[in-house]
Amino acid sequence: MGFEDNIRKVTPYTPGEQPKKKVIKLNTNECPYPPSPGVFDTLNGLDWEKLRLYPDPVMSDLLDSIAEHYKVKPSEVFAGVGSDDVLSMCFLTFFAGDKPVFFPDITYSFYDVWAEVYRIPYETKKLNDDFRINAGDYYADNGGVVIANPNAPTGIGESLGLIEDIISHNEDSVVIVDEAYIDFGAESALPLIRKYDNLIVVRTMSKSRAMAGMRIGYCFGSERLIKYLNDVKYSVNSYTLNYPSIAAGTAAMKDEEYFNDVVNRIKATRERTEKEFSKLGFSYYPSDTNFLFAKPPEGHEASEIFERLKEKGIYVRYFKKDRISDRLRITIGTDEEMDCLFKALREILEDR
Amino acid sequence: MGFEDNIRKVTPYTPGEQPKKKVIKLNTNECPYPPSPGVFDTLNGLDWEKLRLYPDPVMSDLLDSIAEHYKVKPSEVFAGVGSDDVLSMCFLTFFAGDKPVFFPDITYSFYDVWAEVYRIPYETKKLNDDFRINAGDYYADNGGVVIANPNAPTGIGESLGLIEDIISHNEDSVVIVDEAYIDFGAESALPLIRKYDNLIVVRTMSKSRAMAGMRIGYCFGSERLIKYLNDVKYSVNSYTLNYPSIAAGTAAMKDEEYFNDVVNRIKATRERTEKEFSKLGFSYYPSDTNFLFAKPPEGHEASEIFERLKEKGIYVRYFKKDRISDRLRITIGTDEEMDCLFKALREILEDR
Repeated sequence: MGFEDNIRKVTPYTPGEQPKKKVIKLNTNECPYPPSPGVFDTLNGLDWEKLRLYPDPVMSDLLDSIAEHYKVKPSEVFAGVGSDDVLSMCFLTFFAGDKPVFFPDITYSFYDVWAEVYRIPYETKKLNDDFRINAGDYYADNGGVVIANPNAPTGIGESLGLIEDIISHNEDSVVIVDEAYIDFGAESALPLIRKYDNLIVVRTMSKSRAMAGMRIGYCFGSERLIKYLNDVKYSVNSYTLNYPSIAAGTAAMKDEEYFNDVVNRIKATRERTEKEFSKLGFSYYPSDTNFLFAKPPEGHEASEIFERLKEKGIYVRYFKKDRISDRLRITIGTDEEMDCLFKALREILEDR
Repeated sequence: MGFEDNIRKVTPYTPGEQPKKKVIKLNTNECPYPPSPGVFDTLNGLDWEKLRLYPDPVMSDLLDSIAEHYKVKPSEVFAGVGSDDVLSMCFLTFFAGDKPVFFPDITYSFYDVWAEVYRIPYETKKLNDDFRINAGDYYADNGGVVIANPNAPTGIGESLGLIEDIISHNEDSVVIVDEAYIDFGAESALPLIRKYDNLIVVRTMSKSRAMAGMRIGYCFGSERLIKYLNDVKYSVNSYTLNYPSIAAGTAAMKDEEYFNDVVNRIKATRERTEKEFSKLGFSYYPSDTNFLFAKPPEGHEASEIFERLKEKGIYVRYFKKDRISDRLRITIGTDEEMDCLFKALREILEDR
């Protein structure tokens, strides 16, 4: 077939399973608690007749609410269909040169997929044996840098000093700091957007704001970078966030008390989980996220535990990848869900 | 600034205005009637607590309902965030070769924008003076073909014979037939997807299904083409349609009677509008869409009428472009809205 030659052939990213049956779902780092009461009120009050009209392409209500919350200008904010859409647009916009883009070898596994689909050259930089970043790896000439902080799937947050060191050594590249998990730990690079005009800081409402199902991500950067990003966005799809997502996203930014409560509950459960995992003989690095990246005790295979948990109706994430195939990534759920997990793990570890 | 060299610089598509004040909005071809009652019921019955979870990445409910309605297999259907997202993904997936992609000089003005952003070479083929396609223009060697049928902003539908002629002469390219307006006129190429494995037929829920605000588009093609499209989609964003849009889209496919009623009402108002426009001295080609592309009577400038209507709170669309700057694109609204338009036009034409 002649047309085969014109087709962009790629290997896509594999998201965690979204089973339709009822399971304990600790595999995609969703929030175990519902969105804020304000989100419910807003959605229940929407006038669905308005669906006949296109949504606001500028999403000004949403951008204004984000800007107000984070004390930046709306022109320093960009929003998309989840942080995946935001990151994808950033890759397309900022990494259009010929030099390789740098990111760690162990990180969010979508980065190399975006590089492939947009034909962006890239080089991965090896994390050290403790899964930490060596800032010096990012000093070489490059076409861009992407750092997830805290990192996934490791759960480790790096210091703002290290992040700033990387940004300041790359004034000729755009540096993207992907802060999907920042609300659960580590210090944000957001205050640096006024100091460095090559910096983009990416956030999501899918984790700490409990709205994975609404698909809302956003990022911050200098007005100039945001303008370039919008030019590309408006060259791909004029209207990305739909009517309910703009409304719900706007509402979600406003309920600060509920947000803090959810984050604190997850952190408390994370602390309990870390203690239980120690007792069970798992090893892990303390997590700055809403998940734990843990290695089973001596004599147990992560892949086997993954399968056994699944049989018991508990879904966690296993990556069959170099350097991390001996670990499981486990989302922090409710205390009740984690109790079920501890019980299941005890049974699996004892049953040999 | 060194990083400027790495930035993809583009001139984005300009969508029609979405004014926040109350106006008669005949500028973006939205449906003047609300979505089907089933859409309201579905949205009012959603469990917003589920927003904490990612939506179904496969969107199986939606694909199943589309497949059932059109009597194709779900594996022959792809869905996205409006037909713009679907078309954008098609350009990225199917036009990755070096040869130029062909489309008419006067057509949906996003095609050249997608070509620019994805760095796809393209050539436009001149419509004849009556805005009709010459099939022979598309026989030459190319990297892909895109035809909007009915065409926008002309409103003219070409025969299925002409469309098939173009498809059959391009077995070495993917041919995209953009049928955003097909429910209002012209014959669909959908039955041809089983005959030609190089064909993609694109649809939207923004027009005839009154859901522009929900952002739902879809397309049909051979299982092979849909597989390639999904590989690229899952390399860009795993979860595109959010929880409410999957649910509402599924519901919208089911209420056939309401759908037919809406389409018939719009067609009836279009007939009235054409008669009134003749009386007012406008010239136009009979429309197969939910808009009319009309040229004001001798001695009146389209650009001036556009501005005068805007002052009167009636928004229509004016394209300051070669060959069509003497015309206005006017969406078919409700009968009441069109009466206001007729009155305003009479005033403007008389006031000289």
